[in-house]
Amino acid sequence: MKERELIRRIDAMAGLKNDPALLCAIGDDCAVVRKTDELVLLYTMDTLMELVHFDRQWHPPELLGQKAVSVNVSDIAAMGGFPRYLLFSLGLPPDFDDEWALSLSKGVARACDRYGCLLIGGDTVSSPAGITLTLTVIGEAETGQVLYRHGARSGDRIYVSGPLGLAAAGLALYRGEAGREEEFKRLYEAHLDPRARVRLGNILARSGLVNAMMDLSDGLATDLAHICERSGLGARINRAQLPHDVDLEKAAALLEQDSLDWMISGGEDYELLFTVPESATEKLQEVVAKSGYVLYSVGRMVGEKGMYLVAEEDGYKTVTAIDYRGFDHFS
Amino acid sequence: MKERELIRRIDAMAGLKNDPALLCAIGDDCAVVRKTDELVLLYTMDTLMELVHFDRQWHPPELLGQKAVSVNVSDIAAMGGFPRYLLFSLGLPPDFDDEWALSLSKGVARACDRYGCLLIGGDTVSSPAGITLTLTVIGEAETGQVLYRHGARSGDRIYVSGPLGLAAAGLALYRGEAGREEEFKRLYEAHLDPRARVRLGNILARSGLVNAMMDLSDGLATDLAHICERSGLGARINRAQLPHDVDLEKAAALLEQDSLDWMISGGEDYELLFTVPESATEKLQEVVAKSGYVLYSVGRMVGEKGMYLVAEEDGYKTVTAIDYRGFDHFS
Repeated sequence: MKERELIRRIDAMAGLKNDPALLCAIGDDCAVVRKTDELVLLYTMDTLMELVHFDRQWHPPELLGQKAVSVNVSDIAAMGGFPRYLLFSLGLPPDFDDEWALSLSKGVARACDRYGCLLIGGDTVSSPAGITLTLTVIGEAETGQVLYRHGARSGDRIYVSGPLGLAAAGLALYRGEAGREEEFKRLYEAHLDPRARVRLGNILARSGLVNAMMDLSDGLATDLAHICERSGLGARINRAQLPHDVDLEKAAALLEQDSLDWMISGGEDYELLFTVPESATEKLQEVVAKSGYVLYSVGRMVGEKGMYLVAEEDGYKTVTAIDYRGFDHFS
Repeated sequence: MKERELIRRIDAMAGLKNDPALLCAIGDDCAVVRKTDELVLLYTMDTLMELVHFDRQWHPPELLGQKAVSVNVSDIAAMGGFPRYLLFSLGLPPDFDDEWALSLSKGVARACDRYGCLLIGGDTVSSPAGITLTLTVIGEAETGQVLYRHGARSGDRIYVSGPLGLAAAGLALYRGEAGREEEFKRLYEAHLDPRARVRLGNILARSGLVNAMMDLSDGLATDLAHICERSGLGARINRAQLPHDVDLEKAAALLEQDSLDWMISGGEDYELLFTVPESATEKLQEVVAKSGYVLYSVGRMVGEKGMYLVAEEDGYKTVTAIDYRGFDHFS
């Protein structure tokens, strides 16, 4: 059984959620619960497992602590909210090193400072094999401004808030023991120490110009599939519009990998993915440029279901199906 | 480094918590955050690890799911609140069995129903070795009624809400492969399927008669040490007043163990532990009896620090020091 099927079945078991205060439960970046008439509470929880989500061999503990916070805070940013509080459960194997655990915790504390949230609780437990980190972040947003995965409309332009595939390339460089730390610093850092786009997420939410939003944690293909599914639409990605990144291309050449694959299927970008009606795109660019951000329009939502990559080479237009895992081949 | 030292150092790193909405952070059963003038939000997070907190060989998955919810809800009960929402992160090893994972989730869902809370989010991840369960429960309480670990006064009577050591005995029976399921059903069930004392916790909170409260998760010695520490006091436990349990004595005889050790140091009772001024004890018994509960007065808070067990045998009074881990010998 696949993860999404398990989640679907767990959700189905969880019973009727006829609670007027619960505005959104399973299925978005955060659960959304009414706090007051003006404010909602946002709840998200993510687990990082050693050897699945990180490798102690190359991940400095302080950066790992920061990353654990950032990936959770990114879910709050994806709804347009601000993080307020954090709960942190740390599983440590019998052989754990005190200094390592303290450095990790220092990273958690530093990231809390950075994002303006407070560590208010959690748990420490023995773990028979490998380190586990589970965080719950509690955020707040104004009720009328929360952005969901649903809400995209046919014709909307699809935007991403930064380059794609850098973290996937960084991970591939580590796994390939590629070295060249200085040359590929941006890619290594994208994997080790991603930053949540809290301020931008809030600017987008306040702008009133965005129809749907989420964060890019599992890769463009998977994440856009969520927006498509929740909005009952399809999407066309334009190959030529995907952000070009020189470092990414260099790493792809070195490792003999396809940079497009990293951009489409690579996870952990933690950029924002969102859709905007065509009529609002000019206003959006104004709002965002004023705050010093750069956006990339990478495609368009369409009424017909399915996701396709549209490319043009030597005057020939090719259209390739993408499923939520990415795609196997490029033509 | 011990767990409590690690937590202390993490808490110290977490920085100043100068947030007027944060009424209590690390150091109690839940973090307490102001929601409105009348209501507070309660947050708790607990992790259960395979082979540390449970054994898949004898723990039926549905009961394990229920237990994971109960031990978290117990922290809400310990503050006098009601559970409202639940986040659930499930780590599954590569060889996991679909039916097993679904039964576990069914247990989580059933316990949510029982406690009147809703499963609103979480995470599912691969776990390299062993199942991990982390839950966050979000509760609510009336601002003026929340009960903390601090607040006990010298002279207060110490109460527990039920028999002690049953879960520890049940675990010992499993480990000793003692069998006799029918005979020791209560003990096995105390380990497999504990229940959080939500209704009683709320009755106690509303009564206005209780000075300090927490739940018994790590055993009387450890948990009472928390109340002592947070209240700046010591405690005397009266051996003769500890609830006598026939099944517990039978199991102790069978396994050649000391039932007193289970009562003092055994964890996972999930009963409530609380202190009440002498002048309020009569009123308390009235309030509680009306609701059908039985309480056990087991000792007294004292100004002098340290915890002691006071026993009388053959006319001789013995006083034995207890530290937060329990004690090594009885005289």
